[in-house]
Amino acid sequence: MAETTSLVTLDDVTAAAARIEGRVARTPLVPTAWSDPARPLWLKPENLQLIGAFKIRGALNAVGAMDERTRSRGIVTHSSGNHAQALAMAARAYSVKAHVVMPDTSPAVKVAATRALDAEVILVPPAERATRVEELVAEHGYAFVPPFDHPDVIAGQGTIGLEILADLPETATVLVPVGGGGLLSGIATAVKGLRPDVRVFGCEPELAGETAESLRVGERRVWPVERTYRTIADSVRVGLGELTWQHIRARVDGVLTVSEDAIREAVRVLATRSRLVAEPGGAVAAAAYLTRCAELPEGPVVVVVSGGNVEPALLASLLAG
Amino acid sequence: MAETTSLVTLDDVTAAAARIEGRVARTPLVPTAWSDPARPLWLKPENLQLIGAFKIRGALNAVGAMDERTRSRGIVTHSSGNHAQALAMAARAYSVKAHVVMPDTSPAVKVAATRALDAEVILVPPAERATRVEELVAEHGYAFVPPFDHPDVIAGQGTIGLEILADLPETATVLVPVGGGGLLSGIATAVKGLRPDVRVFGCEPELAGETAESLRVGERRVWPVERTYRTIADSVRVGLGELTWQHIRARVDGVLTVSEDAIREAVRVLATRSRLVAEPGGAVAAAAYLTRCAELPEGPVVVVVSGGNVEPALLASLLAG
Repeated sequence: MAETTSLVTLDDVTAAAARIEGRVARTPLVPTAWSDPARPLWLKPENLQLIGAFKIRGALNAVGAMDERTRSRGIVTHSSGNHAQALAMAARAYSVKAHVVMPDTSPAVKVAATRALDAEVILVPPAERATRVEELVAEHGYAFVPPFDHPDVIAGQGTIGLEILADLPETATVLVPVGGGGLLSGIATAVKGLRPDVRVFGCEPELAGETAESLRVGERRVWPVERTYRTIADSVRVGLGELTWQHIRARVDGVLTVSEDAIREAVRVLATRSRLVAEPGGAVAAAAYLTRCAELPEGPVVVVVSGGNVEPALLASLLAG
Repeated sequence: MAETTSLVTLDDVTAAAARIEGRVARTPLVPTAWSDPARPLWLKPENLQLIGAFKIRGALNAVGAMDERTRSRGIVTHSSGNHAQALAMAARAYSVKAHVVMPDTSPAVKVAATRALDAEVILVPPAERATRVEELVAEHGYAFVPPFDHPDVIAGQGTIGLEILADLPETATVLVPVGGGGLLSGIATAVKGLRPDVRVFGCEPELAGETAESLRVGERRVWPVERTYRTIADSVRVGLGELTWQHIRARVDGVLTVSEDAIREAVRVLATRSRLVAEPGGAVAAAAYLTRCAELPEGPVVVVVSGGNVEPALLASLLAG
């Protein structure tokens, strides 16, 4: 199966970059004052995107890559997280309707934020999410844009990798949070496509260490929600998809797992030393830098800060230490 | 007196930009999801500079503009704030020694941070700061770089104005925090020099409303420290200098004052809606946008977020509301 899956190419990523240019924030590389001198650190702050996360890149590319007729019938997805708002914003950018299936247990604030972007929100019991999407596709012909396991979504996230190498050609290592794996797959595709010598590592909580386990055993492992739910890093609790797994096994140098304490400390350090608000899942790669730096090759390191949508009360409690 | 003072020119600012290029972070304009639709808002996040504040621009330009012989004798300043670290870093960039006179009441963490940048810290009773600098200049021939009232410092801060217009030529209004006035003087010089139609407003706490009062009465007013000390925005408690006052009266369209509640709310909004950590003084222009937007001309607005060096405990308490 692995051999026959067609992977996203560097050309797909450069096409995505052309498609989303001017529609997403061109985030800079931010230097840091808390580097290991042998591995100077830059941050790629994707939390500064309008929706507070990188997800807008993949959603915009997926909607933009559709032919006009498909797109005009409407877009559908299921998500209670950053992808919901990303897809709503992408659909609006192309003046088409987004339909977002959300669990009826979603916080009201997330439902309201998605509706504020002109999306239709359909609340269903959590177990019925996937089937409700299938029904909507069958009934109305909506185009389904999943949160990560889709080539156009992966290619869109990969544009971050192009920007990193353009801004810092001397990059030696890139550290990327991994949940569903779309971000890591895309960045690895871009970086390895241009510069096979640059190392790309996924970073995940020990408590949601599915990618590390999958690489260790050589096949995709997805842990039950009851297990991954224990990590504070909610945005990376989800497991790999089949397509992202194929990219990661082929193109990523390894996975670094981190403790919950390291994640909390990383949120603190990002806020106090680099003035960036990160959600716990968005700080996982920073946590890996802070605790496992000595395992990295020497040379410049780029840490992707993937999102900053954290409850103010949680952020306050993390800052208070 | 006003008529005879020579003001910094647009050419001075463009020379500064060439001098500091590659030595400071080229901060982006960050779009926001909390704009008034008639006045869409972008942030200029100078809190993302390595020292967490814009001050590195002016310090680097001032040290860089010196002739080699002057510079090599060493640099001196007095500051307990962001300028101390900025000057230390600038001196290090030119491989010369910085001597920073700090009040012996300074928090140990600030002394340590300045020393960590290889500066010599000289602790004196607060009242003796200025005279100690004069002594050091007389004894050793050190070059004095004051925190704001100096043409090269003003020109360095003005590079922010060039970047704003380069990135968003359709800017209608720029809002800038004002304390000593170096940042506001520099940005007004750049913006008005290139585009006299773009409005530039200073923003300050009502409790340190010296610039507003100075413009109202037509002469520079400096309030006693006991009075300005009441604002939470510590980095803008200082009053205007004579040189910055001349720039501001000639080039700035007005000053917007804000309440303490507005400043606190702005810190919260920047953290939760734009994922940026700002110190209270760094959030003063955002506070003006949040509370006095209707007074601004229609069209795109840029708010300068000037710094993010806030105690974690204070930030936590502001987030908790």
